[in-house]
Amino acid sequence: MPSDPRSPDKPMLRALAGEAVWPPPLWLMRQAGRYLPEYRELRAQAGDFITLCTTPELAAEVTLQPIRRFGLDGAILFSDILMLPWALGQPLRFAEGEGPVLAPVRDAAGLATLAPERVAEAITPILETVRLVREALDAHAPRVALIGFAGSPWTVACYMVDGRGTGGAFHQARALAHGDPALFARLIRMVTEATAEYLLAQAAAGAEALMLFDSWAGILAPSQFRRWVIEPTVELVRLLRKRLPTGYPLIGFPRLAGPMLAEYAQRTNLQALGMDTAMDPRWAALAVAPDQALQGNLDPIALLAGGMALEVEARAILGAMRGRPYVFNLGHGIEKETPPEHVAALVRLVRAG
Amino acid sequence: MPSDPRSPDKPMLRALAGEAVWPPPLWLMRQAGRYLPEYRELRAQAGDFITLCTTPELAAEVTLQPIRRFGLDGAILFSDILMLPWALGQPLRFAEGEGPVLAPVRDAAGLATLAPERVAEAITPILETVRLVREALDAHAPRVALIGFAGSPWTVACYMVDGRGTGGAFHQARALAHGDPALFARLIRMVTEATAEYLLAQAAAGAEALMLFDSWAGILAPSQFRRWVIEPTVELVRLLRKRLPTGYPLIGFPRLAGPMLAEYAQRTNLQALGMDTAMDPRWAALAVAPDQALQGNLDPIALLAGGMALEVEARAILGAMRGRPYVFNLGHGIEKETPPEHVAALVRLVRAG
Repeated sequence: MPSDPRSPDKPMLRALAGEAVWPPPLWLMRQAGRYLPEYRELRAQAGDFITLCTTPELAAEVTLQPIRRFGLDGAILFSDILMLPWALGQPLRFAEGEGPVLAPVRDAAGLATLAPERVAEAITPILETVRLVREALDAHAPRVALIGFAGSPWTVACYMVDGRGTGGAFHQARALAHGDPALFARLIRMVTEATAEYLLAQAAAGAEALMLFDSWAGILAPSQFRRWVIEPTVELVRLLRKRLPTGYPLIGFPRLAGPMLAEYAQRTNLQALGMDTAMDPRWAALAVAPDQALQGNLDPIALLAGGMALEVEARAILGAMRGRPYVFNLGHGIEKETPPEHVAALVRLVRAG
Repeated sequence: MPSDPRSPDKPMLRALAGEAVWPPPLWLMRQAGRYLPEYRELRAQAGDFITLCTTPELAAEVTLQPIRRFGLDGAILFSDILMLPWALGQPLRFAEGEGPVLAPVRDAAGLATLAPERVAEAITPILETVRLVREALDAHAPRVALIGFAGSPWTVACYMVDGRGTGGAFHQARALAHGDPALFARLIRMVTEATAEYLLAQAAAGAEALMLFDSWAGILAPSQFRRWVIEPTVELVRLLRKRLPTGYPLIGFPRLAGPMLAEYAQRTNLQALGMDTAMDPRWAALAVAPDQALQGNLDPIALLAGGMALEVEARAILGAMRGRPYVFNLGHGIEKETPPEHVAALVRLVRAG
C-alpha cells in the first residue's frame, strides 16, 4: 500500500470522514453513461461494453466526461460489478437490450471452473484506468475525489448463480443459499476474497474511497440478510482494513435493506451508507450513527422529470441531511433519457445549499 | 350491507380483531395455484386464466382446494388484482410465460376509455364465486374465514399505465406521477372509487375480511409513497368504513415499504398489516401498534427448500410474534415448484405453536 495520498481539501473526503460539509459534496450514480451525448459517441466507436471497460484510455475518458461537464465532487471508475466474475474466468457478455449474461455456477463443478489466481492479471487494464483518471484529476480537478468500487459478495453471487438479472428474483441463488448453504458459503468466500484483492488494488492505483454496491441486498429475509449480506461484508471490510491506511473511507450501499440498514451500519461500521430511493432520509438519519456519513437518495425519476418535481424532492432531502456528514447523490442510477440540463440544474441547486 | 355475519369462533377473525390467538391462524399467499396437482388438472380444462377467474364454479373449486388438502384458517378468493382494470374495460390478457399484458393508459384519451359504470356488471361472476365459497365454508369448514381482496390503487395504476409487470420498474407510471401529477391523480381517484365498490360488493357477497395488495409500494421515494400509496389507501379505507360493519377487518400489504410501514400503519389505521419477506418481524412488532395484527412473512424459498431451512425460519418468526395478534403467512406468494408435502409440514409445525 502507498502512504495515504488523500487530500484533506476534497469536500467529498471531508464528508466521508464525518464532517458536516455544507453545501454537501455531490456525485450521481451512473453519472457516466448513455444520457450524455459524448458518451454515446465514444460508445459507438468502442464496440462492446467489456472492451470499453478494459481499454484504459476509453474507460478513463468516460469516467471524466461528467466531471468536465458538471464539476461534480466525485469521479467513479467506469466499470461494472460483473467485471469481478469476468476476472474469475466466468464467461460474461452484455447482450443489447437484455443485460448481462453469465454462464451460471450452481454446483461444485461450476465453482471449480473459477480461477481466483487469474484475478490479478485480468484486472490490470482496470487498474490502469484508475491510474489515468487519478493523474487527470490531480492535474486538472484537484478537489474531485476518485471512487473505486465493486459489487458486494451477495449481489455478485446472485448474478454468478442465476446468470442473469432475472428482474431481481434470483431464484437460483436464493434456492442454493437455502438448499446447499455449505456450497453457497464456498462461493461467497471466494468472491469475498477476490473482491478484497480487487478493491485493495484499486486503492493502491489511486482510488481515494471505495464503494460496495449490494444492489440485491433487499430481496433477502432477515436471517438470510444477516448471513449472506452482513457477515460477508463484515469479513470483506476486515480484509480491507488490514491493508488500508487508517480511516480510508468505505461506503456501503445495501439497496432496499429497509429497516435492516440500522443493523448493517452498526455491524459493518463503514464510514458511509448509501440510501436507496425508497429510504426515508429522516429515518436513516436516526438509524445510523451521527458520525457515519449518509449518501443519496434523490429519485432518478424526479431528475428525469426536472422542474418543480426535481426542486421539491431535492430540497426535501437537503433539509433532512443538513447538519450531518452527507454526500448528495441519487437513490438509484441515472435514467438514460435524462436531459443533461436537468443534471446541471440539480448541481446548481445543491451548490446553493 | 348485510348485518354482520362474522363468526366469533373463527381463529383468523379473532386474530384480526386484535386477540393474540395461539397457535396462530395461518393461510398462505397463492395457496391456490400451480404447485397443487389438482389445480393444474383443473387449469388445463379451464382454458385461459380470465375464464377461470370468471367461471364461479371453477374459481370456487380452486379457492377451496388448499382448504380441503391442508385445513388452513383462511380461504382467499381465487382471482387477480388486474380483474379491476379488466372490469373498467381495459383490454387485458395473460400471456403464457410473460405475465399480464394490458393496453396502457397514459393520457387523458386513455383515461376516457375506462368505464367505471361497467364495473358492477363485470364483477358479477366474481361475486358469485364469493357466494359459492362462503356457502361451502359455512357447510363444511365453519372455522375458515373467507378473505376478499383487491390491489391497492398505486399498484393497480402501475399495471394500467405501464401495461406490463416490467420487472417492478414501472417507469411509465413513475414518470407520469412526477410529470403530470394532475392526470395521475385522476387515474388514482377512479381506481380508488372502483376498488371501494368492488370490495364492498365482495363483503356483501360473503367475504369476512378484505386484503389490499400493494405489491409495488416499495419502489417509490418517501414523498411519492405518502402521496400515491398512503393517501389513496386512507381514502379507500374511508370509503369502505362508511359502509362496512364496525370493526370489519381490513388487511394492508404495502410490499417492500421498509421503514415506511410504520407511517402506513399509523395513517391507514388498518386492523392488520402484511409483512413482506424482507421485513424483520421484530422491527415490525415495534413499528406498529400492539393491537394491529401482523401477518407474514416466511420466505417462500425456505418453504420450497423444506427440512431444516423451513423449520428454522418458521420458528424464528413464531418466536418474534408470540404474544401479539398475528396470522402466520408467507412474505410473498408460494413458489410453483413447492412440494405440497412441505406445506403440510409447515401446517403441522405452526399448529404445534
